[in-house]
Amino acid sequence: MLLATPLRQLARELEAGTLTGEALVAASVEAYESGGNSAYLSWQPQRALEFARAVDKVRAAGGNTGPLMGIPVSVKDMFGVPGFPTFAGCAQPLPEHWQVAGPVIQALQSQLAPVVGKTHCVELAFGGLGTNPHWGTPRNPRDAHVHRVPGGSSSGAGISLVDGTAALALGTDTAGSVRVPAAMTGVAGLKLTAGRWPTSQIVPLSSTLDTPGLLAHRVDDLAFAFSALDPVIGKHGKRLAAIPDLADLTFGVPSGFFWENCSPGIAEAVERALRSLEKAGARLVRFDLSGLDEIFEAFLKGGVAAPELAAFIRKELPDIVPDLDPNVVARLRTAEELPAWEYIHRLELIKRLSSIAAMELEGVDALLTPTVTLTPPDVDSLNEPGAYAAANMQALRNTAMGNYLGLCGLTLPVGKDSAGMPVGLQLLKGPWQEERLLLIGQSVERCLGFGPDILGSCS
Amino acid sequence: MLLATPLRQLARELEAGTLTGEALVAASVEAYESGGNSAYLSWQPQRALEFARAVDKVRAAGGNTGPLMGIPVSVKDMFGVPGFPTFAGCAQPLPEHWQVAGPVIQALQSQLAPVVGKTHCVELAFGGLGTNPHWGTPRNPRDAHVHRVPGGSSSGAGISLVDGTAALALGTDTAGSVRVPAAMTGVAGLKLTAGRWPTSQIVPLSSTLDTPGLLAHRVDDLAFAFSALDPVIGKHGKRLAAIPDLADLTFGVPSGFFWENCSPGIAEAVERALRSLEKAGARLVRFDLSGLDEIFEAFLKGGVAAPELAAFIRKELPDIVPDLDPNVVARLRTAEELPAWEYIHRLELIKRLSSIAAMELEGVDALLTPTVTLTPPDVDSLNEPGAYAAANMQALRNTAMGNYLGLCGLTLPVGKDSAGMPVGLQLLKGPWQEERLLLIGQSVERCLGFGPDILGSCS
Repeated sequence: MLLATPLRQLARELEAGTLTGEALVAASVEAYESGGNSAYLSWQPQRALEFARAVDKVRAAGGNTGPLMGIPVSVKDMFGVPGFPTFAGCAQPLPEHWQVAGPVIQALQSQLAPVVGKTHCVELAFGGLGTNPHWGTPRNPRDAHVHRVPGGSSSGAGISLVDGTAALALGTDTAGSVRVPAAMTGVAGLKLTAGRWPTSQIVPLSSTLDTPGLLAHRVDDLAFAFSALDPVIGKHGKRLAAIPDLADLTFGVPSGFFWENCSPGIAEAVERALRSLEKAGARLVRFDLSGLDEIFEAFLKGGVAAPELAAFIRKELPDIVPDLDPNVVARLRTAEELPAWEYIHRLELIKRLSSIAAMELEGVDALLTPTVTLTPPDVDSLNEPGAYAAANMQALRNTAMGNYLGLCGLTLPVGKDSAGMPVGLQLLKGPWQEERLLLIGQSVERCLGFGPDILGSCS
Repeated sequence: MLLATPLRQLARELEAGTLTGEALVAASVEAYESGGNSAYLSWQPQRALEFARAVDKVRAAGGNTGPLMGIPVSVKDMFGVPGFPTFAGCAQPLPEHWQVAGPVIQALQSQLAPVVGKTHCVELAFGGLGTNPHWGTPRNPRDAHVHRVPGGSSSGAGISLVDGTAALALGTDTAGSVRVPAAMTGVAGLKLTAGRWPTSQIVPLSSTLDTPGLLAHRVDDLAFAFSALDPVIGKHGKRLAAIPDLADLTFGVPSGFFWENCSPGIAEAVERALRSLEKAGARLVRFDLSGLDEIFEAFLKGGVAAPELAAFIRKELPDIVPDLDPNVVARLRTAEELPAWEYIHRLELIKRLSSIAAMELEGVDALLTPTVTLTPPDVDSLNEPGAYAAANMQALRNTAMGNYLGLCGLTLPVGKDSAGMPVGLQLLKGPWQEERLLLIGQSVERCLGFGPDILGSCS
């Protein structure tokens, strides 16, 4: 599968002229046509092919616009991308001004990376399983028999990698919306510290927690794409430092919260990975973050995302309410009535515990946890009363801690659970430490093996 | 009056040994004993005298701890100051942890500036007139006959300068609480951009808008004290640039909002000042900020301060409610029921209009307005139904715009109104431009005359 080739290698070959952008987009189109076609809400192969040809000509004429030049990318339908309607998972398209590109898409555009299509997501990104009543719930490609959820809210992002239609996928993460689908479809995912990359022209779920994120086959690909897109690194022309030796790393491993209610085989797969790291020389220490129960209690009540989404809908999309996904509207109703003082208390809780977490995490190189403790459920099982809410909270509990504590986070596939579905290992690190987190993640990946090697392709 | 001497001169004389810190504190004590004694809730003359003597010895032994070494300062009772109880204008003292010094007080302490006492304020700083039912409303020293309000919420801060007990006063400003009492008592006041100086260990009114501020006899004194205390200037050892020539300055003068319902003589005094500036070569252009009516409407409903105060009280001081000032509790009740989405809309309005105001203000060197449009009312007149609420809003309307639009601001006395009370001129400037604002203010002050010369002393 051509688009599963490491990004660094693709970029090298494009630069050397042994590969063309057109060939990459053509491979994407071929994969789309031979696959399940479930990743995309908007798919524009002709446009992408023409774009790739034009970019190839620029390259042939000596142009070089950056590391992502010519590399096919899928974009979650929460981002404004000129020429694509923005539905944000809703039944109807949002007003046209949501098609305008924000800073992250502008960075893609300026490097001439072809956008092959916009990927499905949960309505307004408000859910962790990947369900969508308007467009159907995309099928998790890791199970050929049962229609399991792909994880959400960036439900099409992971699939676009696994099905070979994109070499890099853009998502957004408010409580786990990049890391959950990455873990459930067996790819790597990076959630940035909120505030590091601007969110303008991304349809907002939570003005406090929203952040863009990246999905790719490997941590190494994430590191490549991150340094290509990050404005801080871009501005200072900074080079990432060397990948550290595992023997020089100390990982924190929590004892309670992150291991509760694991589906069969998940804890075991993560523990195997931890033992491999230890065997390779890493130091593992027991490490518990403060305030997890307090934060999780606030999260269960809707956290800050639910009231912030309610405020957004009330102002910008008041007419949308009757058409909303029942699973979205249920949580919105409660948020509508939340008093301001309670919301302010939640913001203060986030602020207070985030600064404590940042300090505590200085004590280790990263915190290691299962990314998701839930085997991706069968879509039909979610129709039972209360089943959606319970599964949604279980899917998001480990990743949401990273958002509510202001951290950056990474997931990579480390094995399979008892149902044969991918299991992710989550690395959490203090705010604005993405560069170091990615280097550590690459070190872990080298030890445990690369995602595509562990899980194979689905075809 | 010794403590009305320019701060630069006091500092020079202290350094040269022609003046002692003990003499300054002794002058403060003498002024206190011969004056109305209405500025202070806590007054500790013996402690300040002993401190000053010890500091004088340090200086005699060659020690120099900074520009404010030995200069008597009064501190608003919202700041934690070790050794002083913190009432924050309430009937009972707050828990002891509110006595711990935050960064601003630490900066004072590290320079060895004696704190002579803690000044009165409106309960929890939630009011602009300076009234207080628990401790009495301090008398405005500019009227020997009528008991007029001194302006609030830093109600004792301006008085501590006028009565000669302090050479510098620390206040806080959430909607005008530094600039209103400065204008009403005829001194200069500086409101910092919220976020520039940390607010930790200051009893919070609004986590969004609160900022420390300074009151002094002159803008020149404010500039001196600001550069002594500002951590940015301190860190980079930066020197303030030269005071600009008025002929090189363009001032924006608004037409509508800031001039509405001026008490007799206030608009006239400010207009006279504007004509003097014009005559001296300044360029005056008509200049209207966007969104004032929208912001004022939100402010009238309690803005973000009322719900943030409600959240604070609910969490930290739930038992205080039955004892609260009826004028405070009335606005708190409404805020208790405010929905989160409405609060979020107010925060977004502030964010949106603040960035517009910052851009618009790039077009002029500063915006000039009356600081307060209301003659300080007779305390008794506020007992009429509705009178307090109306006067409070009128007192705060011009200054609050600076807070809600994220600006920094300055006031200096420019004359008297028809009742013979001081009139202030407000200068507003974009965020984090305090240094330039103070230089411009010094230029204005040189043209219009210094406060103590314009208004004289009160004895």
